[in-house]
This record gives sequence, structure tokens and C-alpha cells, in this order.
Amino acid sequence: MTSVKAAILGFGTVGQGIYNIVHERREHFKQTLGVEIEVAKILVRDASKVREGIDSSLFTESFDDILAIPDLEVVFEGIVGEDPAYGYLDQAIEKGCHVITANKVMFARYGQELQLKAKKKGVQVGYEATTAGGVPVIKTMQNLLRVNEVKQVQGILNGTSNYILTQMRAEELPFDVALKAAQDLGYAEADPHNDVSGEDAFRKLMILCALAFGEQPDWNKVEVVGIDGISSEQVEEAKAQGLRYRHVADAYRDEATGEIIAKVGPQLVGADHPLYAIDDVNNAVTLDTNYIGTLTMVGPGAGMYPTASVMMEDYADMLAKPEKAVSLA
Amino acid sequence: MTSVKAAILGFGTVGQGIYNIVHERREHFKQTLGVEIEVAKILVRDASKVREGIDSSLFTESFDDILAIPDLEVVFEGIVGEDPAYGYLDQAIEKGCHVITANKVMFARYGQELQLKAKKKGVQVGYEATTAGGVPVIKTMQNLLRVNEVKQVQGILNGTSNYILTQMRAEELPFDVALKAAQDLGYAEADPHNDVSGEDAFRKLMILCALAFGEQPDWNKVEVVGIDGISSEQVEEAKAQGLRYRHVADAYRDEATGEIIAKVGPQLVGADHPLYAIDDVNNAVTLDTNYIGTLTMVGPGAGMYPTASVMMEDYADMLAKPEKAVSLA
Repeated sequence: MTSVKAAILGFGTVGQGIYNIVHERREHFKQTLGVEIEVAKILVRDASKVREGIDSSLFTESFDDILAIPDLEVVFEGIVGEDPAYGYLDQAIEKGCHVITANKVMFARYGQELQLKAKKKGVQVGYEATTAGGVPVIKTMQNLLRVNEVKQVQGILNGTSNYILTQMRAEELPFDVALKAAQDLGYAEADPHNDVSGEDAFRKLMILCALAFGEQPDWNKVEVVGIDGISSEQVEEAKAQGLRYRHVADAYRDEATGEIIAKVGPQLVGADHPLYAIDDVNNAVTLDTNYIGTLTMVGPGAGMYPTASVMMEDYADMLAKPEKAVSLA
Repeated sequence: MTSVKAAILGFGTVGQGIYNIVHERREHFKQTLGVEIEVAKILVRDASKVREGIDSSLFTESFDDILAIPDLEVVFEGIVGEDPAYGYLDQAIEKGCHVITANKVMFARYGQELQLKAKKKGVQVGYEATTAGGVPVIKTMQNLLRVNEVKQVQGILNGTSNYILTQMRAEELPFDVALKAAQDLGYAEADPHNDVSGEDAFRKLMILCALAFGEQPDWNKVEVVGIDGISSEQVEEAKAQGLRYRHVADAYRDEATGEIIAKVGPQLVGADHPLYAIDDVNNAVTLDTNYIGTLTMVGPGAGMYPTASVMMEDYADMLAKPEKAVSLA
């Protein structure tokens, strides 16, 4: 049995999920992947903190310790923000490691750069977890792009906003109370700005654009509206008409100009709309393609296990595919 | 540029779709797959029939001519029924070819056998097109099974039934008229028995069971009910209550007995049900998994290009993955 060494960057929800799955599914991975995965080091801010049931020598506060791991094969990254995450992954790729990230803020900005570099170094970049949580939109799109063109991408990409809109409608809560409920459940951060302003959905849409169209639109030209301007009265009024607010991210290539047109904001949808029934923290993505037609995927937009699971699936895919064949990064 | 030789078995909707995509996307495949695909032979019942724009020497009525192609790499199969399709694919695998099929009747019965044989011969079997048309449920499930367990599979697997139910509701047509409309549009065969009796959905459900649970239930123990017993009055009554009939295939493993429980039949669903908005010839599949949670995919359940596209994606995946790593066939 081949043993492969993995490092985890960050030990919040994502990092812990990876750690747990690696240990819970040890026997399963031996069978399905043909390897035994060993978590060699975990990068944290405070290595002295006691973490129940985990060998404290696994933790380090220094990225140099990560780079020093002999035969390090793969780095799972679950930290927040552009820096230092980008620098870490850049160095890991330089060293010849596969990298797998859940960091959408960093990846929206640096994803194309990291993928180009990885290609040169003969390693791979997994980023399924950056967008739509447990919904495998990246892998699905990579597969279908080998044959199809994607004409339009649309979806509910922020689970927190969707949860708040659902609570405002179903429980008739004002925005602030619904937001508080989302925070209490761990869906929204203490600073909910990124979620409710549409910024989070925007970053994910940029990641989808890069894959679908091979490029992103000019970020300054994308209209981004959050859900923070929607009142209880508006939600009630819509409900009375059989309509629901959904926060939708949308991008397509304008056929005349070749330009990518993207926008993010609330939309009213009726019972026959594919997004009507997508409640709570679910995400949904619809892809319009030339051969397959319209494909929609729905699932949990966040959470420890959905996120960690798709990251492990990214790694499984790398074990199955030699880098030579991955021409659509 | 490597050139690979392909054969197509059958030249109905599926076979023509494959032929068209191979030619329309020649340049694209060179870029994305790094190969040039050459259709070397096409097996048909009547090779003398004139087919506009296609070299008549490509057509043959003899499967021996297919087996005689030097360096044949892959066989695309789009014929109907268990025999002779099974025998053809068995021989193609024996010869060392990858096989890709859209034949659900054959594959429900012989899929596991073909996959075992392919594994021994070091080739692969693609069967995305057997189930849910353009919806990539097979590939998605293969990916997530590397990490997850699938607890339940549910879905609308017969587009014709779904189209008829949609027409009965939206246009208030009686069953016979809706069926005639489906036949006129090419959705239903002249003999619509397989579709409206639930038999087609049953076969697809068996294919999903084999993948999700590693085995199929005893076929004799599966309750299969079609849509042919649903009256206009029942559809109207449901509509008045805000409900819709959906024809649902469902399978799960009973935790107590370990047995797989499967059934196929009409269900009434309300506006909050994920299948409520799935109209026309669309298919939908919902997977309940242990880590990701519930994942739903929706898309066209049939059609020349959706079917042919996912078959080409199967082949793209084979080019990307060496057989050694495909442990979940």
C-alpha cells in the first residue's frame, strides 16, 4: 500500500473536516484510491492550543515546517483571504505538490495564475470546494467542457443569503432577526458583510467564469447587489403573489461583442422557476451548454463535511488522472 | 497528433449524434483531448441505404468488419435491446477496446458482467448515457463514491412519462392525446409500452443501484407502476390542490436487513418538493450521501446531442484516466 503525505493549512471548519474524513475513511481510501493518506502537518495560528484527540506534534505555526515535509504530495488549504494563502499555495506548487483549496476569495483573484504554474510544474490544482460547497459544479463543468461550450452560468452561490431569504419568507422574520439566526447556526460570520453584500457570490461567479469562458470579466464592470436592501414588506408582498426572492449570480458571453456580462443580485421567481424550491443554505447552479442543453445542480452550499468531501474527491481525481491529460485546468 | 479509431454500433439517434459531434468538434477534441478521432466503421442493419454526406464505405452490416478494424480503440454503442448488443460489447472488450453504451436495457442486465470483464482486460466501460440522458449522474456518483456512501437514489428517470404528465396537467390533455404528442415529437416509440409502464425507469434504476450499492435488488421484488393508470380527472384534482404527479424511481439500502428496497411509480408532490418544477422531458436525480448530504441534478433525459455528448465525455474521461486507477467501475 502506497502511503501519501498530506498537509492541512488552517484548522477551522474545512481543515477539521479534511482531518476527520482522512481518519474516518482510512480503509475506504485504501480500497477506492489504493493509497493510505497520512496527515503529516497542520498549519495553525496557535500551535499550543490543545486539540482533543490529535497529536500536538502535528501542529505548526510555520509554513516552513510544511515545506520541509519530505515527499509531501498534497496540500489542503482551508484558510481565509487572499494572503498569505496565495503565497503558501504558490510555494507548495513550486515544491511540486498538488494543492486543493476551499478559499474562494484567494482563488477568484489568483486561480488562473496558480493553475498555469501548476501545469508547468506537472501538478494539479483542485478547487471544487471554492464554489457551491458540496455541489460538484467544477468537476461537472470540466467534464462537459471537453465536449460542450458553456453559454451561460447562473445560480444561487451564497448559502447564507439564501438561508436569510428563506427565513424572511417562511418564518416572516425581519432581515436582522434572520441574519442573527444564520449567525447562531454558524452560517454567517460575525461580520456578515461578504455574504449579505453579494461579495461572496461575486467571487464564486468569477471562479465559474474563468472555467466556463476561459476568462473573467472586468471586476469593475460587474454589478453586485446584496440582499441587505430587501425589506420584510417586499418579501411579504412577493409571497402574496406566489413569488420568492432568490439571490442570483449570472454570467454569459455576449455573442455580438464577445464580452462576458456578469451580474449578482436579487431576483423574483415563480413556482415554475428552477430556483423556486431551493431553500435554506442550499446552492444551485444552472449551466446552459450547446450540446447537453440546460443542466442544474443543487446541494449544500457549505458545511464541514460537504466541503471536505469534495476536496477529498479532488484528490481522488488527481490520483486517477495523470497531469498530462488535464488540459482544461 | 495521435489519431484514434472508433466504431459506432447503430445509426439511429445516438449513433448519428456521435458521428456528428466527432466531426463538428474535431478541432476542439484536438485541443482538449489531444487526439484526433476517426470513425472507422458504422454497424447498421442496411448498409445499402443512402445516407447523405457520409462515405458509404463506412457502413457495414457485419460485426466481424468492426472487429477486423486494426487498432480499434473505442466502440460507441447505440442499439436497442439486450441482444445482440451484449455479445458485441463482450467481443469488443475481449479484443481490448473501450466500450461506451447508451443501451440501458442491455446494461441493466449485463453491466456488472461487462465491467468485470473490462477490468480484467484493462479497458473501460462508459455508461453515462444509459441513465438520465444528458444528466451526468453516473460520473458524479463515481466521483463522490470515492469518498461518500450513497444512502438513497431517487429520481425522474423517464422523460417521456414526465412529458406526458406535464402535458396532461399544463394543457389539460387526456393521456392518449398527450402520448400521441410525445410520439409526434419523437419522445415516445411507436410502441410506448416501455416508457409508460415504468419498465424503462426500472432498468435505469437498476443501473443506478449497481453503482450506488454495488449490487441490484432482486428484480422480481421491485414494484413497478407506470403512468398509464393515471386519469385526466386525477391530474386535474391534484392540480386544484397545488400538487403534481411525478413518476419517481426510488432505491435505498434498508439499514436493518441490508437489503436494497426499490420501487418505481407515480407520486404526488407539492411546490416545495425538489421534483415539482421538473417539467417536460427533463430528468432529475437526487442522491443522499453521508458526507455531502443531498445532491440533485436536473437536465434533459434524452435527445441526440445530450446523449452523444455524455458518451463523448465518457471517452474523454478514459483518455484522461489510466485504467489502473478506476477502481469504482
